[in-house]
Amino acid sequence: MNSIEEKLIGIVGGVGPYAGLDLAKKIHDQTIASTDQDHLSVALISESVFIKDRTLFLLGEVKDNPGYAIANVIKKLDKIGVTVVGIPCNTAHSPKIFDVITQRMNEHDCRCKLVHMIDEVGKFLNQHFKTIKKVGILSTTGTLKTNLYPSCLQRFDIQTITPDTHMQNEVHDAIYNQEYGVKAFSNPVKKKARNTFLEAISVFEQRGAEAVILGCTEIPLAISEKQIGNCHLIDPTGCLARALIREVNPQKLRPYG
Amino acid sequence: MNSIEEKLIGIVGGVGPYAGLDLAKKIHDQTIASTDQDHLSVALISESVFIKDRTLFLLGEVKDNPGYAIANVIKKLDKIGVTVVGIPCNTAHSPKIFDVITQRMNEHDCRCKLVHMIDEVGKFLNQHFKTIKKVGILSTTGTLKTNLYPSCLQRFDIQTITPDTHMQNEVHDAIYNQEYGVKAFSNPVKKKARNTFLEAISVFEQRGAEAVILGCTEIPLAISEKQIGNCHLIDPTGCLARALIREVNPQKLRPYG
Repeated sequence: MNSIEEKLIGIVGGVGPYAGLDLAKKIHDQTIASTDQDHLSVALISESVFIKDRTLFLLGEVKDNPGYAIANVIKKLDKIGVTVVGIPCNTAHSPKIFDVITQRMNEHDCRCKLVHMIDEVGKFLNQHFKTIKKVGILSTTGTLKTNLYPSCLQRFDIQTITPDTHMQNEVHDAIYNQEYGVKAFSNPVKKKARNTFLEAISVFEQRGAEAVILGCTEIPLAISEKQIGNCHLIDPTGCLARALIREVNPQKLRPYG
Repeated sequence: MNSIEEKLIGIVGGVGPYAGLDLAKKIHDQTIASTDQDHLSVALISESVFIKDRTLFLLGEVKDNPGYAIANVIKKLDKIGVTVVGIPCNTAHSPKIFDVITQRMNEHDCRCKLVHMIDEVGKFLNQHFKTIKKVGILSTTGTLKTNLYPSCLQRFDIQTITPDTHMQNEVHDAIYNQEYGVKAFSNPVKKKARNTFLEAISVFEQRGAEAVILGCTEIPLAISEKQIGNCHLIDPTGCLARALIREVNPQKLRPYG
């Protein structure tokens, strides 16, 4: 048993509960392993009751910054010895929340390294799709308003495009609507939700997007394809999983594709 | 925020890695919740590299008792404040392993309560299928040899039946075979594996079984039905999930069925 195998990956679960499990699954799926014993060590803490809705906070509808509760989870993970941590929630990476998390981690003297999911999407595109210069962003209206992906991806010289207002409302509804949205119906997903995402992807492609980022952890539940038409589909949770494996044991990272 | 909501459920992951995630998912699925914040708190530690194969140990092919490594995981979970713990592995409940776990928990002064998955299957049958007196056991040959289910279920006055040697070999192969077994091919499952389980269930039914226990965490990946013919199908991971919810917050337990 060598020291590499002892490194523990931490997951901030509960944002939401299924997104945490999805990240853990994608870590195991993308690890080179043929027995239980080959798999990387993972610790996940899901305490969603303490973590206020990230979008509602950014929209000013909830007062408590969820960054404090997220930092408390990281503190617990740090205490049991994780060396690296990921947060499978796009909106939690908005500076207004993320800066509180890193500030509290400093105050708690956390030793673990926090991986930034949005940056990892940029690095992933840069590594595997180097020629791509224009990507569409599918997300909730909350995430869209934080300008998260555009501000990150411009550092990688990638131009981002977003849906027009009508289409963005449809996309947001395909996530949140109580009658057919993916948050309410994920297994199986309603046809109307999937069709909305497919239409948005098609419009992005017509506008010249070479890739589309599925920038809400619920969207990959409806769209599991890696490519539709000429558009590559990028799953941020999958990018984060690969980054976490790379941090603890790059030799165990399954080649992409 | 009341004290009930602060109770944390612990999961010994890694036995195997996907079984731990399956238990976490079934806890969330069976919780009455409509927002992230409604969900119960769960901590999962998956350190499969340290936990030797349970069946190989029982068959004498591996020397180290995996109970010690499992107890170390429980010690970590206890340290971060879980009040109750479950182990989603049938074989780990064999006395030769389980007794080491409870003994070490005592030595470590663990305060959390360890729920016994096999006992919970008995309680579940007793609560929801009170009239059932004869059940079939589908499991690996290793679990079969430990006599785990028969010795537990007889306390609930339930008779157990197992496949004949030929059929048991087929069932074991449908789990372990490198060409078509569920351990190697779980997504999607190979038709041959599923058909073997279906045939075994059919034979059990002909022999008078009113229910069949899917007594290996891989089998429910191939058989997701709750009933086939007149036979009720019992998923031990699902029973364990319900027990863990009941321990921390019984009001949040979704009614069965």
